[in-house]
Amino acid sequence: MSGVSALYQLYGKPGSFEKKADGIALGLTIGSWTDLPLLEQEQLKKHKGLVVSIIEFEHILHPQKSDQIKAEIKINYPSANFSADLPAILTTVFGKLSLDGEVKLLDLEFSPELLAKFPGPRFGIDSIRDQLGVYNRPLIMSIFKGVIGRDIHYLAEQLRHQALGGIDLVKDDEILFENPLTPFEKRITTAQEVLRQVYEETGNRTMYAVNLSGRTSELKAKAQKAKELGADAILLNVHAYGLDVLQELSEDNNIQLPIMAHPAYSGAFTSSPFYGVATPLLLGKLTRYAGADFSLFPSPYGSVALEKTTALSLGEELTKASAVKRTFPVPSAGIHPGLVPLLMADYGIDSIINAGGGVHGHPKGAIGGVLAFKQAVAAVLEEVPLAEAAEQHAELKIALELWG
Amino acid sequence: MSGVSALYQLYGKPGSFEKKADGIALGLTIGSWTDLPLLEQEQLKKHKGLVVSIIEFEHILHPQKSDQIKAEIKINYPSANFSADLPAILTTVFGKLSLDGEVKLLDLEFSPELLAKFPGPRFGIDSIRDQLGVYNRPLIMSIFKGVIGRDIHYLAEQLRHQALGGIDLVKDDEILFENPLTPFEKRITTAQEVLRQVYEETGNRTMYAVNLSGRTSELKAKAQKAKELGADAILLNVHAYGLDVLQELSEDNNIQLPIMAHPAYSGAFTSSPFYGVATPLLLGKLTRYAGADFSLFPSPYGSVALEKTTALSLGEELTKASAVKRTFPVPSAGIHPGLVPLLMADYGIDSIINAGGGVHGHPKGAIGGVLAFKQAVAAVLEEVPLAEAAEQHAELKIALELWG
Ligand SMILES: [Mg+2]
Ligand SMILES: [Mg+2]
Repeated sequence: MSGVSALYQLYGKPGSFEKKADGIALGLTIGSWTDLPLLEQEQLKKHKGLVVSIIEFEHILHPQKSDQIKAEIKINYPSANFSADLPAILTTVFGKLSLDGEVKLLDLEFSPELLAKFPGPRFGIDSIRDQLGVYNRPLIMSIFKGVIGRDIHYLAEQLRHQALGGIDLVKDDEILFENPLTPFEKRITTAQEVLRQVYEETGNRTMYAVNLSGRTSELKAKAQKAKELGADAILLNVHAYGLDVLQELSEDNNIQLPIMAHPAYSGAFTSSPFYGVATPLLLGKLTRYAGADFSLFPSPYGSVALEKTTALSLGEELTKASAVKRTFPVPSAGIHPGLVPLLMADYGIDSIINAGGGVHGHPKGAIGGVLAFKQAVAAVLEEVPLAEAAEQHAELKIALELWG
Repeated sequence: MSGVSALYQLYGKPGSFEKKADGIALGLTIGSWTDLPLLEQEQLKKHKGLVVSIIEFEHILHPQKSDQIKAEIKINYPSANFSADLPAILTTVFGKLSLDGEVKLLDLEFSPELLAKFPGPRFGIDSIRDQLGVYNRPLIMSIFKGVIGRDIHYLAEQLRHQALGGIDLVKDDEILFENPLTPFEKRITTAQEVLRQVYEETGNRTMYAVNLSGRTSELKAKAQKAKELGADAILLNVHAYGLDVLQELSEDNNIQLPIMAHPAYSGAFTSSPFYGVATPLLLGKLTRYAGADFSLFPSPYGSVALEKTTALSLGEELTKASAVKRTFPVPSAGIHPGLVPLLMADYGIDSIINAGGGVHGHPKGAIGGVLAFKQAVAAVLEEVPLAEAAEQHAELKIALELWG
């Protein structure tokens, strides 16, 4: 089938879904069908939405309405109906429908011709590894902490400490916007200098992702400027802008910088079990198709947590076989060294271990925090229990004592 | 207070909200406070989030968790923390927080200095009235129906019939994208010619809103082209793009076209009672601040319906006293002439009566449908009951018999 097939979750009375599905397939495409003269049916055929499947879950009742069961319906929308951009696709499959009661968009399947119009990550996992020269282990990333209202020296010091520990990536705080104390360009050039020094001192290479922010139409020029200044990567609050903005930044040949997609604001669409868009679709598949090289999301372990199955299928969407490159899964929030075995079991080595408090809150500072993570990763790769490895590594030992 | 104050709804144990509110106010601004040396507290003071108010609704229990009650907390985020654009504001107030459990963003209050950075509608209700030469009554609008896969002659005919009835506005179907049968520029020039003819024949002026679609960075040039071709107005699927895209189109002095904001995809954020963004904020206040001249939303009467209080406060957000101009409320879906008294009671004369099926489904066709609406509006203005007016007006009579 051409076009896009949308999988929806809805609730209703048993046996009611066929009519509902037909209503969606027609209502969101050609409007009506049976009343049309045969000649018009012929003309409109290639535009007609198609009910692909209806699955009723007889035993899954609506939690509040006991006469309703859950169903999943899949509907195909032909390519002839929309331009090959995400705003058109989202409007087609979930425009009016998003306002029509308890219906959640679970998945979208793009036909190969349609997917060919989407760039996917420009770099992806393999190329990011090449840039860092790191293979066969998860990357380790950390986050600036408490940088609002601080000056550039404060940021530089924080960055230096994280880098000295041997961190692979550091990202800006997503709530750090253009400001006089730490302006965008100054952050880039300062970080570059700090990281060059650390590289000379230690041989460790660290990539810094600067928060690209401001008005939509200015982002490309700012990103190009970042590239010219030698930036390593950009961070984008994708969902506060729109997925197409991510895609345009990814596609732009004058930018060519790895893009880290931050999930800020995405919970507004994804959190409800009944409405909105499924997390693996929004932060997984669509973020990948639109060209993010990294996708951050709440890990299933911390206090701000995704449900485990959701967090795992999100990771799969980012990395499973596809015509586009793979995006690094970055499960975030509540990560400390004691979780490294679990993280690596859940997300494998092609993922990123990302910590804020778990780095900065280490009693030996950010350097100690990064070392503890590196020690934990090395232990897992060598199949040594963390407790055993901790006997050899003071930083890991301290971390395990503190966080478990 | 400077900056923006966000009102959130959350659930929790009685007495737990002060700690939660403090956590948000600090966590989304400077991170920590009490541990800081006095000098640093002094430096960071102007960046510190502030808990403005906490209201616990002791008697409103969480529908599933009986030990939790509802609360509304208001937190102020200083302007020093963000650039004056909606992506930065949304990320600040509801970035990470949108992912943090059952919390819904109910409202945002912009300080006057901040609001001064937002354009609001370029035209607004009064200027749109001047353009149409229509005062002292609601405008009447209709929608193309079943136009996907149809050619330009089909659209022209539909438009002509709607205009001949004396409709004030006609909007494109929001799911009609760039396509070879009815390309964007052709729709504009064809509509112009049709509407010019109808004006010559009847003296009725109709405004046509063309669906502006495609890649984000191309929208401005397309809208400028539309302006050059003499387009009347543009329709935008705002939420499939991002509010800032709307704002940039509204601000652009090379465009200067009225903008109709379509609510497609917005239900993904607004529908849940526990998560996301309140409808009056998203489709009301923010759509107005970002510059829409018209805001469409599901009426509280039809099958795809908003709750009545929500739909009314949405209308208020669009029209209440503010530093920016007023946006036309366009309650949509399920509208037929019999609802006109209710619509006018609920939304007053400064609103738009918008119908699809209620125009096209009229037994005397779109012309009859439009006439029936005009007759209903005239009756309400003259304080004549519809049933009585129907005795004088065949089209209204037929409509009332059909739809009630
Ligand atoms: Mg952060
Ligand atoms: Mg429509």
